[in-house]
Amino acid sequence: MSAPKIDGERLWRSLMDMAQHGATPKGGVCRLTLTDIDKAGRDTFVEWCRNEGMTVRVDKVGNIFARRDGRDPAAKPVVTGSHLDSQPTGGKFDGVYGVLAGLEVVRSLNEQNITTDAPIEVAVWTNEEGSRFSPAMMGSGVFGQAFTLDEILDKRDTDGKRLGDELERIGYAGDLDPTGHEMSAYFEAHIEQGPILEAAELPIGVVTHAQGQRWHEITVTGMESHAGPTPMAVRKDALVGAAKIIQRVNEIGHAFQPGACATVGYIESMPNSRNVIPGRVFLTTDLRHPDDETLTAMDRDLKTFCETLAEEASLTIDVKDFWYFPPTPFDEKLVALVGQGAEIHGLPSQKIVSGAGHDAVYVSRRVPTAMIFTPCEGGVSHNEIENATPEDLEAGCNVLLHAMLEAAGWRREGHNL
Amino acid sequence: MSAPKIDGERLWRSLMDMAQHGATPKGGVCRLTLTDIDKAGRDTFVEWCRNEGMTVRVDKVGNIFARRDGRDPAAKPVVTGSHLDSQPTGGKFDGVYGVLAGLEVVRSLNEQNITTDAPIEVAVWTNEEGSRFSPAMMGSGVFGQAFTLDEILDKRDTDGKRLGDELERIGYAGDLDPTGHEMSAYFEAHIEQGPILEAAELPIGVVTHAQGQRWHEITVTGMESHAGPTPMAVRKDALVGAAKIIQRVNEIGHAFQPGACATVGYIESMPNSRNVIPGRVFLTTDLRHPDDETLTAMDRDLKTFCETLAEEASLTIDVKDFWYFPPTPFDEKLVALVGQGAEIHGLPSQKIVSGAGHDAVYVSRRVPTAMIFTPCEGGVSHNEIENATPEDLEAGCNVLLHAMLEAAGWRREGHNL
Repeated sequence: MSAPKIDGERLWRSLMDMAQHGATPKGGVCRLTLTDIDKAGRDTFVEWCRNEGMTVRVDKVGNIFARRDGRDPAAKPVVTGSHLDSQPTGGKFDGVYGVLAGLEVVRSLNEQNITTDAPIEVAVWTNEEGSRFSPAMMGSGVFGQAFTLDEILDKRDTDGKRLGDELERIGYAGDLDPTGHEMSAYFEAHIEQGPILEAAELPIGVVTHAQGQRWHEITVTGMESHAGPTPMAVRKDALVGAAKIIQRVNEIGHAFQPGACATVGYIESMPNSRNVIPGRVFLTTDLRHPDDETLTAMDRDLKTFCETLAEEASLTIDVKDFWYFPPTPFDEKLVALVGQGAEIHGLPSQKIVSGAGHDAVYVSRRVPTAMIFTPCEGGVSHNEIENATPEDLEAGCNVLLHAMLEAAGWRREGHNL
Repeated sequence: MSAPKIDGERLWRSLMDMAQHGATPKGGVCRLTLTDIDKAGRDTFVEWCRNEGMTVRVDKVGNIFARRDGRDPAAKPVVTGSHLDSQPTGGKFDGVYGVLAGLEVVRSLNEQNITTDAPIEVAVWTNEEGSRFSPAMMGSGVFGQAFTLDEILDKRDTDGKRLGDELERIGYAGDLDPTGHEMSAYFEAHIEQGPILEAAELPIGVVTHAQGQRWHEITVTGMESHAGPTPMAVRKDALVGAAKIIQRVNEIGHAFQPGACATVGYIESMPNSRNVIPGRVFLTTDLRHPDDETLTAMDRDLKTFCETLAEEASLTIDVKDFWYFPPTPFDEKLVALVGQGAEIHGLPSQKIVSGAGHDAVYVSRRVPTAMIFTPCEGGVSHNEIENATPEDLEAGCNVLLHAMLEAAGWRREGHNL
């Protein structure tokens, strides 16, 4: 008999429907975590799950787990999922695809009368993007014990609103202990958010591990003064210092190829007035590399540069380590199931390293984990023009279905297999 | 008989009292134009003027003219003044000194029973700083016909509030035609906002002319994308492009010495998220030079650099001319009166060029004008630590008194001169 398959059209329709929550004029999505729009997206997902007969539970950090029971009530669930929140100018697929691919797996199982030994669960992790509340991957991070529940609930957005209060407000402060939830395996399907699969014309990336990341917060302090009568020679222009750091970060990215990424994504200059020499600039850096030693070397390069610059330019430069996680290898057996799924469905694939952080990275600290990548147009993500083809998304979901069924144990009811 | 003198202590007390409106914890002032705090400062000034028997009129752009009548009702007034608004983190002297020095002149004339032929007026110009509403020097600019009244009333702050509405709200939308007000001479006393007088240990700068200025608005457009999986080689990072422009602007300032100033004071990066490659950056530049040809060369250098950078980095860079005014020579006769005032009061002085824009620059388009500079500590201005000594401020005000009396014609009543 042939391998079970999902319904690619139904998956696509769900993605388009979900994209209505926070739709932007340019065709993207703005669904910042724990906003009214995020609530609406969560409510839609929960409704869809209940329509499939699933049981929905929410933990104390707002992670949602929708469960389809298995035959063995004692078995730990095989889980898949991702996130529903987006960047301020995000796309329709980043995160959402992993969640709705999980739902599509369940819909297909129901439709095809397939039962599993272990339960199947679809997870929605709170605040993966880290745009409104920093850092990113909060919900999975609490599950993976990278953060404590209390520290996360106390995080505030730039308006001073507390994460815990916002969870209560939108009705997603559940009572489940976020670290008490057990799983036997975790899979996550996600668009690649990079150009590698598209360039290679492959629908499936078998993700072997995730890049390490080091994030910094840098404050450059000079001396604010009037832009007219302050001679160039006596200036302490914090923005000129910041500009040199931005360029150096970019140079570091180019210098540590292959594999390095280095970005300044956030900058704030004070007092930010046209005719005042900036006195203070705050900026953030994001360094990534699949090799931990190289990542350390990148970090060292940045810090040495800032020390030298501070002396030369008479600026004070404070470099704070904000976030670190080491390169993460995924579970060999589950990675093999993903590769097998591609083979069985006749889908060309290659092994790939995840450049982005994903909920799977934190989940993998406690549960055997693997990821499936599918191409996205031009490799573009975190952008309203983010795009992917229905065919590629269907392919990734079929691979997910295979991997989850193999991990959970399964049979078609009413058939001799 | 000796030359009339002002009361330095009284001037200092007025400065300290005015600094209470918008006082910051660091000893500075935040009195953004047309806010409630600006209204409070204006109200105090008007009250002080009325206590001196002056007549107060307000024009349609909110400029205040407080008048002390002369003996000749047909004579055009000799005017002095400056502004009461401040930068977001401004000091106690920038602008305020010129206004309260004018008031101190009137107080001294009243006290010493001195009458003038022409009326004496003290002017407060609306929104000199240009922080809340851009561009700067709006009130004097409308007077000087650099801007029309209607275009200025329609300007909006970053919250979308309209200048004309804010004028109404705080009760300073007067009925005087801003371009109809006639003057025979205009003087402005101001702290230098640069380090030259302090370094030369001179209390008085006789300002001969003002630097030319060219301001630009630059928008760098690249491609926003995920900071993790987007390889360095394919990025179009708008902030890296902006960083190169910031450095070039700084280099232009150093290259066109002596006399050049070049600053990027404002920057805004979009979407400004830690893990997104910036897709668009908006920044402003401020180029200044006392020589118009050199200023043009600086402008050309910047534009050529941006063109080349756009091509090399595959970015779109739009450079908009935002504001230009040529180097402005002041009126020779009035400048000579200022030099004479310093001499008569035994105050060492030097000729100096104004690096900053001042209301006097626009006023000089329609009225013979001169300026008096006094030192400020470390040359620092547009900063909460801006400072000046009571002695220097007293010296500048005595020079102002002399120049205004000579321009207006005067006598002590009840004395044989």
